[in-house]
Amino acid sequence: MLTEIRDASLHARGRERIAWARRFMPVLGAVAGELDLTGRRVGLVLVLEPKTANLALALRDAGAEVVVTCPAGETDDETAAALVSEGVAVLARSDASPEQDRDFALRMLRQRLDVLVDDGSRVVRLAHAAGLLDGLAGAAEETTSGLRPLRVMADRGELRIPVLAVNDARSKYLFDNVHGTGQSCVMAALDLTGLQLAGTVCVVAGYGYVGQGVARYARALGARVIVTEVEPFAALRAHHEGFEVRPLLDACPEAALVFSATGVAHTITREHLGAMSPGAVVAVAGGVPEEVETGDVPPGVTVLADGECVNCAAAEGNPIEIMDLSLSVQALAVDHLVTHGPAMAAAVHPMPGELDERIARLKLRALGIGLDVPSALQREFLERGL
Amino acid sequence: MLTEIRDASLHARGRERIAWARRFMPVLGAVAGELDLTGRRVGLVLVLEPKTANLALALRDAGAEVVVTCPAGETDDETAAALVSEGVAVLARSDASPEQDRDFALRMLRQRLDVLVDDGSRVVRLAHAAGLLDGLAGAAEETTSGLRPLRVMADRGELRIPVLAVNDARSKYLFDNVHGTGQSCVMAALDLTGLQLAGTVCVVAGYGYVGQGVARYARALGARVIVTEVEPFAALRAHHEGFEVRPLLDACPEAALVFSATGVAHTITREHLGAMSPGAVVAVAGGVPEEVETGDVPPGVTVLADGECVNCAAAEGNPIEIMDLSLSVQALAVDHLVTHGPAMAAAVHPMPGELDERIARLKLRALGIGLDVPSALQREFLERGL
Amino acid sequence: MLTEIRDASLHARGRERIAWARRFMPVLGAVAGELDLTGRRVGLVLVLEPKTANLALALRDAGAEVVVTCPAGETDDETAAALVSEGVAVLARSDASPEQDRDFALRMLRQRLDVLVDDGSRVVRLAHAAGLLDGLAGAAEETTSGLRPLRVMADRGELRIPVLAVNDARSKYLFDNVHGTGQSCVMAALDLTGLQLAGTVCVVAGYGYVGQGVARYARALGARVIVTEVEPFAALRAHHEGFEVRPLLDACPEAALVFSATGVAHTITREHLGAMSPGAVVAVAGGVPEEVETGDVPPGVTVLADGECVNCAAAEGNPIEIMDLSLSVQALAVDHLVTHGPAMAAAVHPMPGELDERIARLKLRALGIGLDVPSALQREFLERGL
Amino acid sequence: MLTEIRDASLHARGRERIAWARRFMPVLGAVAGELDLTGRRVGLVLVLEPKTANLALALRDAGAEVVVTCPAGETDDETAAALVSEGVAVLARSDASPEQDRDFALRMLRQRLDVLVDDGSRVVRLAHAAGLLDGLAGAAEETTSGLRPLRVMADRGELRIPVLAVNDARSKYLFDNVHGTGQSCVMAALDLTGLQLAGTVCVVAGYGYVGQGVARYARALGARVIVTEVEPFAALRAHHEGFEVRPLLDACPEAALVFSATGVAHTITREHLGAMSPGAVVAVAGGVPEEVETGDVPPGVTVLADGECVNCAAAEGNPIEIMDLSLSVQALAVDHLVTHGPAMAAAVHPMPGELDERIARLKLRALGIGLDVPSALQREFLERGL
Repeated sequence: MLTEIRDASLHARGRERIAWARRFMPVLGAVAGELDLTGRRVGLVLVLEPKTANLALALRDAGAEVVVTCPAGETDDETAAALVSEGVAVLARSDASPEQDRDFALRMLRQRLDVLVDDGSRVVRLAHAAGLLDGLAGAAEETTSGLRPLRVMADRGELRIPVLAVNDARSKYLFDNVHGTGQSCVMAALDLTGLQLAGTVCVVAGYGYVGQGVARYARALGARVIVTEVEPFAALRAHHEGFEVRPLLDACPEAALVFSATGVAHTITREHLGAMSPGAVVAVAGGVPEEVETGDVPPGVTVLADGECVNCAAAEGNPIEIMDLSLSVQALAVDHLVTHGPAMAAAVHPMPGELDERIARLKLRALGIGLDVPSALQREFLERGL
Repeated sequence: MLTEIRDASLHARGRERIAWARRFMPVLGAVAGELDLTGRRVGLVLVLEPKTANLALALRDAGAEVVVTCPAGETDDETAAALVSEGVAVLARSDASPEQDRDFALRMLRQRLDVLVDDGSRVVRLAHAAGLLDGLAGAAEETTSGLRPLRVMADRGELRIPVLAVNDARSKYLFDNVHGTGQSCVMAALDLTGLQLAGTVCVVAGYGYVGQGVARYARALGARVIVTEVEPFAALRAHHEGFEVRPLLDACPEAALVFSATGVAHTITREHLGAMSPGAVVAVAGGVPEEVETGDVPPGVTVLADGECVNCAAAEGNPIEIMDLSLSVQALAVDHLVTHGPAMAAAVHPMPGELDERIARLKLRALGIGLDVPSALQREFLERGL
Repeated sequence: MLTEIRDASLHARGRERIAWARRFMPVLGAVAGELDLTGRRVGLVLVLEPKTANLALALRDAGAEVVVTCPAGETDDETAAALVSEGVAVLARSDASPEQDRDFALRMLRQRLDVLVDDGSRVVRLAHAAGLLDGLAGAAEETTSGLRPLRVMADRGELRIPVLAVNDARSKYLFDNVHGTGQSCVMAALDLTGLQLAGTVCVVAGYGYVGQGVARYARALGARVIVTEVEPFAALRAHHEGFEVRPLLDACPEAALVFSATGVAHTITREHLGAMSPGAVVAVAGGVPEEVETGDVPPGVTVLADGECVNCAAAEGNPIEIMDLSLSVQALAVDHLVTHGPAMAAAVHPMPGELDERIARLKLRALGIGLDVPSALQREFLERGL
Repeated sequence: MLTEIRDASLHARGRERIAWARRFMPVLGAVAGELDLTGRRVGLVLVLEPKTANLALALRDAGAEVVVTCPAGETDDETAAALVSEGVAVLARSDASPEQDRDFALRMLRQRLDVLVDDGSRVVRLAHAAGLLDGLAGAAEETTSGLRPLRVMADRGELRIPVLAVNDARSKYLFDNVHGTGQSCVMAALDLTGLQLAGTVCVVAGYGYVGQGVARYARALGARVIVTEVEPFAALRAHHEGFEVRPLLDACPEAALVFSATGVAHTITREHLGAMSPGAVVAVAGGVPEEVETGDVPPGVTVLADGECVNCAAAEGNPIEIMDLSLSVQALAVDHLVTHGPAMAAAVHPMPGELDERIARLKLRALGIGLDVPSALQREFLERGL
């Protein structure tokens, strides 16, 4: 079997944790129950933990052969063991070297996958570099920062397969980026430091979806939040929502806690770090390499999780109910690529609106929330325009 | 002179109120200072009050000949008198009959206007019906509900002039619709009733920009807010932002205060009114005719402002700082149409992004808010994609 | 008849407004229905408007002979006319001179009142000064600032009648001071200025019950709020609740809106006014004379309502549901003084806890809110201590 | 030496964590720097973790001989080892049996302590039962639930030493109970479950200081919060602060998460648990034994931390800055008892106001927050009363 994990004996606790998460994932259950992926081979690149494990199991239940890889730093060995015990192939161990991680990805790619579900587009790019694209109907990518280089590749004519921009599905970014990452990053930072937010000054660099979430949760927990931005409308919105808005360097000396939520490298530079007061703590929400320039941190300043995404590296990622939505988008993306991928252009494609809406409706049903339906008189009004 | 108003002697108090508003409108001042409209004729359809009066004065200062009309119900006679004392032509009186109001609009249209700034698209449609479009380079329309029929006309090939969708400028809808209408409708409802929100149940029909604003301000003032929606993503967002979401009929019995924020006729029907408890109060935020079916209101239920937009009919409209943005968009729309209108297709056009952004940047400058600028390293990162 | 009002013909509109308020005052109705004040003479000093009028009517319905006075600045002539049309004696007109107002109070005091309900303790002190205390079983006083001089009088042995501190009833200050004054002062300030709070800096001097209310409502509407305090625990609480805390003089230059919520004279001095930026607006919440030193206001600064309580002078006071509680305390205070006053010491007395709690329970019943009841096991636990 | 711990070799990591906490505890540092406890023997019963360890070190630095005990379930072995390496006597190991824990307490009590700092009053009661009170000048107790049985003992004449009610110091309960326990219990529950609050229904039983904190933080994180109460004013306050208020049994079926914040046994009974929906999660904030009747939990319901205080058992307790205040009160309580204890009655005494205020002022200084000082005119006003 293809599998390579650290300790197969850890499966029992892993299965328990996967089952706990599944209780709060009704949408993925409903989505997967309608798919037929018999005989398809799907490669999954996941932050390997109990919630994402449910995507692997859901695809397997729909008939797919599933192979999972994950870099060492994001691998939970109990979850890996549990998946293997359920017949899923796993190439991931928490003690792997970077070379091994790369080798795992290459071994997965050599399985003649039908679809690849990536996280950060590392493996999609590796597949291009290593020439392992044969038979691949397409890939799904769920992060903003993973899509960015793929779009650059598409612009340069270097992208060779269709990619579904799972990140841009409304079922994903409206909830995962704002509420999921917002809550989990703020909580991870508090957990790691033992500090409180009530009465402290918290700086949030970037007021996109993730930044909005972080800023709101931090304020909700009592912080005075200062937002920094490069884009005028985002800055004005933050201002009208009651946040102070300033240039970052100007805000650093007052900050007890600084979040980068830009997803852009070199956001928190040496100069910013040097302007912070002793005791300041820095965290990255979301994150790309070098988002904080960690090369030369002054003694009084602490960069959490070595500047990596604080909610992935130091906590268990996003809340279960949010992951239920995001993973459901992934499952439908797999199904869509299997059917339509071969006919799709080698480009970054949006998630089809009807699939996106199907997930939203399933979530509402799971929550027991009823919608109104426009009456005949209202439909007439909308057609007429007045 | 073209002018017809109720009482020219009221000008002193009107001028004072206009001057008060101007103190808090730095953006309109900055925008208008850069325009040259010498010799242009501009027709303005406005809710005539001290804030909007400043648009008339700003355009006049830029060299335009300005004619203003306003329906009786939205005309403030002090403001009208003040404008006339400043040399602006005004056709508006608070005691006009509907026939007179129509006549005022027609008289204005006969002035061979270069540009028409409309509010609700009533006068644009009248100009089409009356065949008074000659020489008109275009029109600006600032409401969602005014644009809707113009888009239907465009689809049917019946629109004869270019229309700038001022409502869709980000400088407008991100602030005016959410914060302006949100704050002012909630406050007008409290003002009219003498009630409080703390501890009451408040229902908000519709979770678009206006509905979001109303829901947030109502909750901020202590209400338990129930949102009703027809669109699944809007419903899910409301849910994740902590609002209860239910069908409207189901929510009516509990409601102390019901806002319609849909801008769609027949939102609050007889059936909904009948399901409300004695003491319930209904208000329209934004609004189109028949949004509440006021024909047959049960004895215990009160519909504020006879079902018209509660913040226009019963209060002085949106806050000054918000109007500063919206009126600045109008001023730039006039300038754009004067120059480019003759070459533009007879369609509904978005506001050009660079004009929109110019307003946002002027507002930030007026607020003393500094933006960051991406560094060379960051620009490289963004180009490279990783 | 004793009555002197401005225009008796205004009664119809007044009666309508009083009836509107009564719909939302179930507690006063329930309280008054149980009282028997037959043959008692009660003097009421009220901000004369539709809500307080209901106290006069409730006492009359309970059998009392009621005389009402009110200073000119707080007299609503429609309400006065309505009360007279209902058989209540009223000495109040909106065009009275200060001498007339004093005369009205003296005429009321000469009616051999059993109980006096005062507002600001002006008339209680006048009664002492004029020697008109004969037969008076006691007085009720509902403001913090009215109780202060009475306590000083009591300390000096100069108080000659028992006074019930209605202000200190929990049914009053927990709701009236925080929510009532909080909401109504913020709204009155916005109404008077046409401004918004979203994105502005708002300073609140004093973080007692009123200040807490003002600060919370201002923040809820989007302001960045800076609190100033003289007391360390109040300052720390404000800090932990997410407010910035600073000395007042230091905060003035940034402020768009400054509220004094201290109830202490000379809070906003000339020096503070001089430190404010052009466009700054100052308002008093609650208020005593000279709380803002209005003698020498710089040209760019606006003091709302001439430095008087902004929600009384410029709006219709507190929300109806809040007044329902406060006026119910007044009604029970009258009943208590009639029965027990003659045996009570000439001192400031707290409101008896069981009366206070009765009001809270009636309010909960009116709201349909059910309480839990400690079980037998829980009562045992509480007695045993563990 | 008296010490008994699990593994002395763990000291390095413990010292690091203690030092991290100390960086954020300026008040304890300032307080302790002024004390002289040379030759005094102080017994500390603590939840043994890095923050509380700083109290032991601060008292040692002030010259005291310090002995620490802690029950097994709340003992962190790294912290224990670090304290021992600093010369503090520790009797605590994470693998102790209940008998050993009791023995540790008795061994500590036999050291002829001058002062005992207790947590839950278990050891004070043991000292009474075992007759080990000789030489004890008094005890400090910092929990609501620990004070309750001591007050019952005092009422029955069974209390033999003076006890300082540290819990009732404003520096403690205004911050520790509301903000500390509020934030940490909500976060611990989310951490343990991986769930989110946005959009869920959360029930909070009890609206005292702890309950207020839990309810506010849960709402801040997006939950719809239902409060349950037995006391009418608390219920009304919750209502006015925008919470739904209902009887507990009635609220259970809707709840995703139920917190008990009453500190009263038998709050969440079998009947309540039976009324919950599958997936419901129950947590205790603060807590006494049997607060949740854990004997018979239905299969679909999860009781976190076996019904013990969720933030102590499952997380690292309260935020550091909050503990800085609470532990500073403890330090001053020790000093006060050493000096005044021998002359104090055997009763539960409040913390002297001037000590309490000293801590508040030190905290403000550490935060850099300035207070205003009443002017001469204001002091005159306050003395005169008007």
